[in-house]
Amino acid sequence: MSKPPQAASGTPRLRPAVERLHPYVPGEQPRDPAIVKLNTNENPYPPSPRVLEALHALGADKVRKYPDPQCTALREAIARDLAVDPEQVLMANGSDEVLKMFAEAWVDPGETVAYLWPTYSLYPVFVHKTGAREARLPWRTGDCTQEQALWAIPPGVRLLYLTSPNPPVGLPVGIDAIRQAALANPEAVVVVDEAYIAYGGESAIELVREGLPNVAITRTFSKSHSLAGMRVGFAVGPAGLIDGLERVRDSYNLDAASQAAALEAWNDATYTREVVSRVCATRERVRGELLARGFTVEPSAGNFLFARHPKAPEIFRFLRENKVLIRYFDTPELRDGLRITIGTDAEMDRLLAVLAQWAHQGD
Amino acid sequence: MSKPPQAASGTPRLRPAVERLHPYVPGEQPRDPAIVKLNTNENPYPPSPRVLEALHALGADKVRKYPDPQCTALREAIARDLAVDPEQVLMANGSDEVLKMFAEAWVDPGETVAYLWPTYSLYPVFVHKTGAREARLPWRTGDCTQEQALWAIPPGVRLLYLTSPNPPVGLPVGIDAIRQAALANPEAVVVVDEAYIAYGGESAIELVREGLPNVAITRTFSKSHSLAGMRVGFAVGPAGLIDGLERVRDSYNLDAASQAAALEAWNDATYTREVVSRVCATRERVRGELLARGFTVEPSAGNFLFARHPKAPEIFRFLRENKVLIRYFDTPELRDGLRITIGTDAEMDRLLAVLAQWAHQGD
Repeated sequence: MSKPPQAASGTPRLRPAVERLHPYVPGEQPRDPAIVKLNTNENPYPPSPRVLEALHALGADKVRKYPDPQCTALREAIARDLAVDPEQVLMANGSDEVLKMFAEAWVDPGETVAYLWPTYSLYPVFVHKTGAREARLPWRTGDCTQEQALWAIPPGVRLLYLTSPNPPVGLPVGIDAIRQAALANPEAVVVVDEAYIAYGGESAIELVREGLPNVAITRTFSKSHSLAGMRVGFAVGPAGLIDGLERVRDSYNLDAASQAAALEAWNDATYTREVVSRVCATRERVRGELLARGFTVEPSAGNFLFARHPKAPEIFRFLRENKVLIRYFDTPELRDGLRITIGTDAEMDRLLAVLAQWAHQGD
Repeated sequence: MSKPPQAASGTPRLRPAVERLHPYVPGEQPRDPAIVKLNTNENPYPPSPRVLEALHALGADKVRKYPDPQCTALREAIARDLAVDPEQVLMANGSDEVLKMFAEAWVDPGETVAYLWPTYSLYPVFVHKTGAREARLPWRTGDCTQEQALWAIPPGVRLLYLTSPNPPVGLPVGIDAIRQAALANPEAVVVVDEAYIAYGGESAIELVREGLPNVAITRTFSKSHSLAGMRVGFAVGPAGLIDGLERVRDSYNLDAASQAAALEAWNDATYTREVVSRVCATRERVRGELLARGFTVEPSAGNFLFARHPKAPEIFRFLRENKVLIRYFDTPELRDGLRITIGTDAEMDRLLAVLAQWAHQGD
């Protein structure tokens, strides 16, 4: 096998915006099955049994032919349960894809995209890819709430990404503040990323139902429906915004298997509720344990906790050495904290046991 | 259920490039199972039995956890068989996604993208979305070959899309002409879309192996591997181009089910060869029949035929009324022709029978 040619010699130059871009770093997907994986906010419980039944019943024709480009059955089921029209729902290859599409449809190079900071670290990637400018709206517990941070939206913003509940800390953003931001910035598209909404907080879908023309929400099947492996997300918004997204959508962005899996997961709402409430109960128990051990942990409305501790990096490494993988973000605002996904009770007990080991290692 | 708000009132204005965009129109996916579907170049034969076995064996953990963002097993299998390094392979959600990514990585607004014309009608959509300019390189049988058309590439082109074999007509583009175009335009990325290469023509992967720094190929599992429903495609190129694509790729662009299905399909090369050769045999038989009935049909290296006839639109409608669905493109260059996907022998016999009915309807 011949060596590939050197990247540097003769490669046509990239777009400057892409050349400068720092790609998003996804959480690690370790191969070692012994690792307790609490690093990417997956749901620790399996998907509804109906999901696997649907996948295992997939026929040759579903695989062979192009999928329904409109995801009709799925959009109708979602619209029915969320009390909107199917034309107000757009499916995507994970909510990451639809979040990106908002920038593709509404933001030209040099225009401004705003978001709370800290927040989901994928937004800056979209901004840089577009060649846009970012406006970070800093917030910090005890100093400036997320809602207060929205007062600082600069004029002329084209797109505002709000995650509610907002990782890695997990506080929801109040919908009154979102409504106010949308009304005060009518030329901006306000996208509320509700990846974690099943675990807490009030959904901004109420604002869509009220008829605000510039507010949309996005959701994902990854966290609440245990379908991270299938990549399914969606947006719900006024028809004007959904039409705009539709113009930039790839025709066949969601494959037949993902459509079938997501439909069953969505329709088994009882199962989802049960799994979600189990995760929430575990979250509250673990938060109590962490507080008792000297961590600072705000109440989280997500399926994760952000636990601050002066020795955060050391604890992160110790956990890792002991096969408990959590997430550490080495940025000024977050480097005193650890983001811990809520796993099963047994997984969380393992985490707590290793933390106890760390605390006593000097004894 | 309340009506959605009107699109027009208060929707923030789209990017002008998106506002002007004419979205791609995918071929129809009819629900009536009685329709003989020869309109979207799907493979008429089922995927390898190993594909369904893999899908039916998918476990809860594969569905629940994020998929391998690097598609490691799949890239290694493809690299091994194509005699390149895994770092020279990038997987995507259908080859449509990776074709789009070339524009995202290399083309800024106002820059020029070139392609033969007629060709795959998705390229203009990418160009318009980018806010780029298009340079169509017109070719026409008996007047200017596809290879001659490449002499007209204007200076300063940033991206050249070449489809080989090139739909809807189906002629391959000679690799000597592609090499020459790449050498004469070293600042342009030359992408050879080989969606149909299994059915004929010489692959430009030879140019990648030669070490040309600005040539990549793309392939899809839709046509040759009967996986249109699973959305899997890939690019092979020099490491410098693959690195550029990697910068704009969504981290989890290929779900776990698609990765599993594609790996089995790829590894069952014997099955693919058999299916492809059956389609090619049917294609040659049907071409002979169409020529005998007065159609003008160039030899095709794809899994389709482009049959010209003065009464093309009428024939299209007649076939449709009789539940045979083919593709008609109402553009100046193509409106005298019908693009017919090669189906099973039984499906093609049905097509021929309806054509005979049409021919005799005046009797």
